[in-house]
Amino acid sequence: MEFFVQVLFTMAVIFALARLGSIVFGKLGLPGLIGEILIGILIANIAGGAFMEDVLDITLHGEWSDTYNVIYSLAELGVIFLLFSVGLETKVKDLLGSGKAAMLCAVLGVVLPFVAGAALIIGLGGYDMNCAMFMGAAMVATSVGITARIIKDMRLMDVKESRIIIAAAVIDDVLGMVVLAIVEGMSESAGGINMVDLAIIIIKAVAFVLIAIGIAKYIVPRIYDFMDARNRRIKAQGKSPYTFNKLIFAIIVCLFMAYLAEYIGLAAIIGAFLAGMMFAEHAWEWGLETKAESITSFLISFFFVNVGLQVDISSLTSMDTVILIGAVIVLAMLTKYIGCGLGAKIADPHLEKSSFNIIGCGMMPRGEVGIIVALIGTKILVDEVSVVSDEMYAIIVLMCIATTLIAPPILSVLYRKKYKTQYNVSDEDRL
Amino acid sequence: MEFFVQVLFTMAVIFALARLGSIVFGKLGLPGLIGEILIGILIANIAGGAFMEDVLDITLHGEWSDTYNVIYSLAELGVIFLLFSVGLETKVKDLLGSGKAAMLCAVLGVVLPFVAGAALIIGLGGYDMNCAMFMGAAMVATSVGITARIIKDMRLMDVKESRIIIAAAVIDDVLGMVVLAIVEGMSESAGGINMVDLAIIIIKAVAFVLIAIGIAKYIVPRIYDFMDARNRRIKAQGKSPYTFNKLIFAIIVCLFMAYLAEYIGLAAIIGAFLAGMMFAEHAWEWGLETKAESITSFLISFFFVNVGLQVDISSLTSMDTVILIGAVIVLAMLTKYIGCGLGAKIADPHLEKSSFNIIGCGMMPRGEVGIIVALIGTKILVDEVSVVSDEMYAIIVLMCIATTLIAPPILSVLYRKKYKTQYNVSDEDRL
Repeated sequence: MEFFVQVLFTMAVIFALARLGSIVFGKLGLPGLIGEILIGILIANIAGGAFMEDVLDITLHGEWSDTYNVIYSLAELGVIFLLFSVGLETKVKDLLGSGKAAMLCAVLGVVLPFVAGAALIIGLGGYDMNCAMFMGAAMVATSVGITARIIKDMRLMDVKESRIIIAAAVIDDVLGMVVLAIVEGMSESAGGINMVDLAIIIIKAVAFVLIAIGIAKYIVPRIYDFMDARNRRIKAQGKSPYTFNKLIFAIIVCLFMAYLAEYIGLAAIIGAFLAGMMFAEHAWEWGLETKAESITSFLISFFFVNVGLQVDISSLTSMDTVILIGAVIVLAMLTKYIGCGLGAKIADPHLEKSSFNIIGCGMMPRGEVGIIVALIGTKILVDEVSVVSDEMYAIIVLMCIATTLIAPPILSVLYRKKYKTQYNVSDEDRL
Repeated sequence: MEFFVQVLFTMAVIFALARLGSIVFGKLGLPGLIGEILIGILIANIAGGAFMEDVLDITLHGEWSDTYNVIYSLAELGVIFLLFSVGLETKVKDLLGSGKAAMLCAVLGVVLPFVAGAALIIGLGGYDMNCAMFMGAAMVATSVGITARIIKDMRLMDVKESRIIIAAAVIDDVLGMVVLAIVEGMSESAGGINMVDLAIIIIKAVAFVLIAIGIAKYIVPRIYDFMDARNRRIKAQGKSPYTFNKLIFAIIVCLFMAYLAEYIGLAAIIGAFLAGMMFAEHAWEWGLETKAESITSFLISFFFVNVGLQVDISSLTSMDTVILIGAVIVLAMLTKYIGCGLGAKIADPHLEKSSFNIIGCGMMPRGEVGIIVALIGTKILVDEVSVVSDEMYAIIVLMCIATTLIAPPILSVLYRKKYKTQYNVSDEDRL
């Protein structure tokens, strides 16, 4: 079969199954994205290799098939557009407004999981220091994508907790990437870390975010005012001004920012989020939100199915491994819950218990960010000292999946209790 | 560089350059898509192999790079969504309303170019029969995508000529695929064609289109009435009905129809168009048109740049080849112009000269359909009898490009003259 015909077939099947999963979960009152992830798990583990390889032409392990390259790219574009959409609804003044709470929430939500993850592996014995560091780094990640979708589905972008979560998740992503970079640096220099390299990584990451916020806050309004004045002038002369397609322009900025983020060593989604934020002030006026959402709604299912495809249930062999996985999952959830909740509570001593719970749970899902850390860990360490075993990799991935599966239903219940919002009655207009 | 980081970079560069080309051509009063195709030609021929391979990681010839696999898929998805959008605006009753004119237009627009193309190659001597047949088949193709975009950009979907062109292009595509299938069959059986296989191909193609039209005309309205009655009943009981995301559902149908079309040996775009037509009656009510257009506007630039990327200017070596290319291009344009115009004129003897011209020019662009024929021709014949030389391939591709470049400006001038429509004043909301 010709290459693209196979791609088309695989896309159609994955997309249709994903929506089926989403609708079934929606009817059960659960977030649809869990249904989509479970479809991925079912395809990878129950449908079997014959279905995966012969029917869908997907090979995940070893050399990726051409078809999977495309599906993977669509999945990554999906999460980029999701974060771009979230950015479009995040105005800079709102982000800076929830600043102190978000910052403390992110910092404690990074320190606690890292220390706990590393300590657990060291305490167990039998693993080396690099292994412990990578477990710590994987525990740090927060997948704002998962939480963002729930928040968007429930139309609760504007409430205090959502703003803190989104802002903290962005800071958390930056801190997480810095932690990963440090761990990478340590493993490469076999223990002794180069302080100059480390300083450069931290400066680049912080500068990228601050520059983007600065552009959104100070430069974008000026450009807009300039264009507005120019168009008025042309109209006053009786001519029609040459306007351009804002969606296209915003997408170009989004793609370049996503690339730039990857280029300097951060995740693409950070760039996409910041790009969205640059257009947030005028997103409604230009109809950008609904347009970007149409693109997201086409692509995002591939992302969630792909998260599920990564799960290999057969790696759960010995009882020891199962217990270790359980311990890692509990630790991953508890440390984020306590760290992030506490951070917000310190910033605002009058924080209600219900808000503490929402923030703590909202920061739990590790999603693809943790999986990426696991992938980077295996790739680097196999080349260098080969310490992260397949077992450790499977544990990290399953921890990411578990936190991603467990946190969303709890979060949606907590949100519903607090805001009495309707949810899942209709799939209409949902991402 | 990690695989997806490269994809992101290549996408961002191609997308930004394409829009630049589109805006420059828009300012010159020409259709933006020509600017996008020229950007592709510039990248492939002027920027040079180092830029293509080292910067963009695109290898077109021989083994495709992973990056190009993704870009190619996005391009194909782009044209699928474009035809889906066109389908969404083509109501069955309108299509059948322009039936006789469109049918005659398509049939004469297939017979004349085929005979002329094959006769030219036979007359020249030095080429074998299979070669002549493939040239004929390539001359038959009509790329409705190119014309559809111009019509959509000018907001002239509703005028008589546009309806005939779109309907004829669909019929033409079906006939073109049948012709290609016949030629393939002939070349494989070394001259003697298997009549049973041929009959099966024709029946499959015609049945696919008729069944899709039948579903759109008879079954879709019933489903809609049933759902509507059900929702009213549920609402009358004071509950809110479970509605689903129509865009998602329409995309699933589109992907499966596109695949199905490829599966039975037609082009994917025919399936996408027919899928759009199934939803045309309610596309406005459900907001499908604008949503599908947002997706199209993201993807379609990749398609037009990719058409340009295929052009290898260096294949124009000898003077004889240049003259042959000129003759093929003139013949390709003239035979479509006369064939299609005449077909419409026979169906409606009162057809104005201006309508004759619009229909004749609107059917000229061969675009990607002709290129696909050229690709299939080389692939099959190199295996079998190796008759279609690189030269013949280059000639067919250049003919496709030339008709695609020359026809649109003429068409937009003709439309503007007749309908006094504003065009290209604003890039806003253009695809």
